[in-house]
Amino acid sequence: MNLLHLARPDDFDKLAPLVAAFHAHAGIEQSDEARRAALMPLLEGIPQGVAYLIGPRNAPVGYIAISFGYSIEMGGLDGFVDEFFIRDKVRGRGMGSEVLMTLLPALREHGVKALHLEVDRDNESAQRLYKRAGFEPRESYMLMTRTR
Amino acid sequence: MNLLHLARPDDFDKLAPLVAAFHAHAGIEQSDEARRAALMPLLEGIPQGVAYLIGPRNAPVGYIAISFGYSIEMGGLDGFVDEFFIRDKVRGRGMGSEVLMTLLPALREHGVKALHLEVDRDNESAQRLYKRAGFEPRESYMLMTRTR
Repeated sequence: MNLLHLARPDDFDKLAPLVAAFHAHAGIEQSDEARRAALMPLLEGIPQGVAYLIGPRNAPVGYIAISFGYSIEMGGLDGFVDEFFIRDKVRGRGMGSEVLMTLLPALREHGVKALHLEVDRDNESAQRLYKRAGFEPRESYMLMTRTR
Repeated sequence: MNLLHLARPDDFDKLAPLVAAFHAHAGIEQSDEARRAALMPLLEGIPQGVAYLIGPRNAPVGYIAISFGYSIEMGGLDGFVDEFFIRDKVRGRGMGSEVLMTLLPALREHGVKALHLEVDRDNESAQRLYKRAGFEPRESYMLMTRTR
C-alpha cells in the first residue's frame, strides 16, 4: 500500500477534517468556507502546490501540503512544506519520517530539486526528526515576511 | 518611468549579465549554459515564478526574481524573493527600498497575499532595510533544506 496519495477534488471530504484538526492545533483561525476555498485549487491541480493524503486513501491519518516555487540557483522547481499533520493516535510510529524520506524522491520525478521546511527554533525533537530525514538546518538565515 | 519591468524572453541579454554579477557576488557557480536554462522558463512565463528588470528596460541596473507558492493558511499565492540585485554604482540611493515597497502591491493584483525573503542573521543593515519596507522578522523559526 502506498503511504502517500495525491489529493484530488473528490478527496475533499477526507482532507478537510484533517486540515481543520491541524489548524485547531496550530491556532490558525479559518472558517469552513474559507478553508474549502483555500483547499480546492490545490486539489484541482494548480501548478503552485499539491496536497497528499497520508495512509489509506479512504481513511487517511494525516496530510502534507507542498508549495512549489522556482529557484534560479537550482535551475528548477523547489518545494516548501506548507502544512504537515499526522493524527495524535498514530504519531510516534515513524510515519512522519517515512513521509519525509519518500516525498523528495517522489517529487524529484516531477522536476523538484530541493525541499524546504520551517521549524520552530525551540522544537528540538522536530529538528532531530527532520535531520534524520535528510534536512540540513540553515541557521545563519532568518525569514522575513510582508503581508500588508 | 516604471521602476520594474516584467522580464520576457527578449530581455534575456539584458538580464543574464546582471544574474552573472549577482552570482559572482554571492559565490554561486553556474555555467552560462546552465544559467540560460535556469532563466528561460521564468522569462517564458512559468506559473511558479517571475523576474523583473529594475530601472530602464534597455539599460537595467538590477533585477528581482520572485518564486510563487501556495499557502493554505493564506488561501492563495505567496511570493518568495529568490534573487535580488542592484549594481554597486547605483546602490545606496533608496532604489532597493523602492523596489520592495512597490513589489507587493503590484503582485497583489495577481492574487499574491504575502511576500517572504531570507536574510543573513548577521546582516543588520539589510534587516533594517527590509523592516523599513514592511517586512517582519520571523526569528522564532529556522529553515531546513533537503537536496539529496
